[in-house]
Amino acid sequence: MSDLIALHSIGHVVGGRVAAADDDWDAVQARIVLASEFTAEALAGLEDFSHVEIVFQFHRQDVAGIVADARHPRGRSDWPRVGIFAQRGKARPNRIGVSVCRLIAVEGTTLTVAGLDAIDGTPVVDIKPVMTGFLPRGAIREPDWARAIMTRYWEVP
Amino acid sequence: MSDLIALHSIGHVVGGRVAAADDDWDAVQARIVLASEFTAEALAGLEDFSHVEIVFQFHRQDVAGIVADARHPRGRSDWPRVGIFAQRGKARPNRIGVSVCRLIAVEGTTLTVAGLDAIDGTPVVDIKPVMTGFLPRGAIREPDWARAIMTRYWEVP
Repeated sequence: MSDLIALHSIGHVVGGRVAAADDDWDAVQARIVLASEFTAEALAGLEDFSHVEIVFQFHRQDVAGIVADARHPRGRSDWPRVGIFAQRGKARPNRIGVSVCRLIAVEGTTLTVAGLDAIDGTPVVDIKPVMTGFLPRGAIREPDWARAIMTRYWEVP
Repeated sequence: MSDLIALHSIGHVVGGRVAAADDDWDAVQARIVLASEFTAEALAGLEDFSHVEIVFQFHRQDVAGIVADARHPRGRSDWPRVGIFAQRGKARPNRIGVSVCRLIAVEGTTLTVAGLDAIDGTPVVDIKPVMTGFLPRGAIREPDWARAIMTRYWEVP
């Protein structure tokens, strides 16, 4: 039982990296340009937030390579083989990414952001402000590999 | 320029609230049941995480009521009128919600969660583990209304 859910991109990533990379994403600035049906009204007040959450599709991920069961994160056999929904890699059903980045500027229907781990041309399906009230409630527990995989992910070289 | 992005639900919310409410969501437990094409492998290792991030569609939000420009959050005229992408309400383009909740149990292809602000029957398009490395980097700034709107949102009555 699976519903078809038809979305439309509300904008695209412009600039930044032209190919995916594993690390150093906080060094990258990019723009998000809203689709032509939107006006600057859609972003009114966003500049009062320091961070935004971007929902996008990993459109360059080959559909044939999507994993529906389990695999080693980044192919690293020294890390456990875990389910695709227990990791955040891009070869996942629906190819949806959700990332928090810093908001640098809002001008008209264009945002400038830093540290968005999505490449040039990526279709964006939603933009949400980061509110402290939506952060995890209570202590966070995660396995060792999840800390190891993030060691250099955002690092500015 | 807007791309069509066709997704399929990977599961559904079962149980919890049958209608949306503004507050007290942490008191709610619900299950997420994966669609029949998945096996327990897709969730392997997820139990090592305390929290999960659920990407879903607010399917009961009337499409005709979607706001593409700006409005007062919750219709509260004492709060500023802000763009739809500067708030997290459900009447948004694509009707996508992203929420972090506590993971209570994983059994086969069913998760039990607490504090998921999505109602019974909601189609789920992704499940991601909460990794500390994906939380916001740097100090978070937000306007006063964003703190006020969250005051009783998770509160257990």
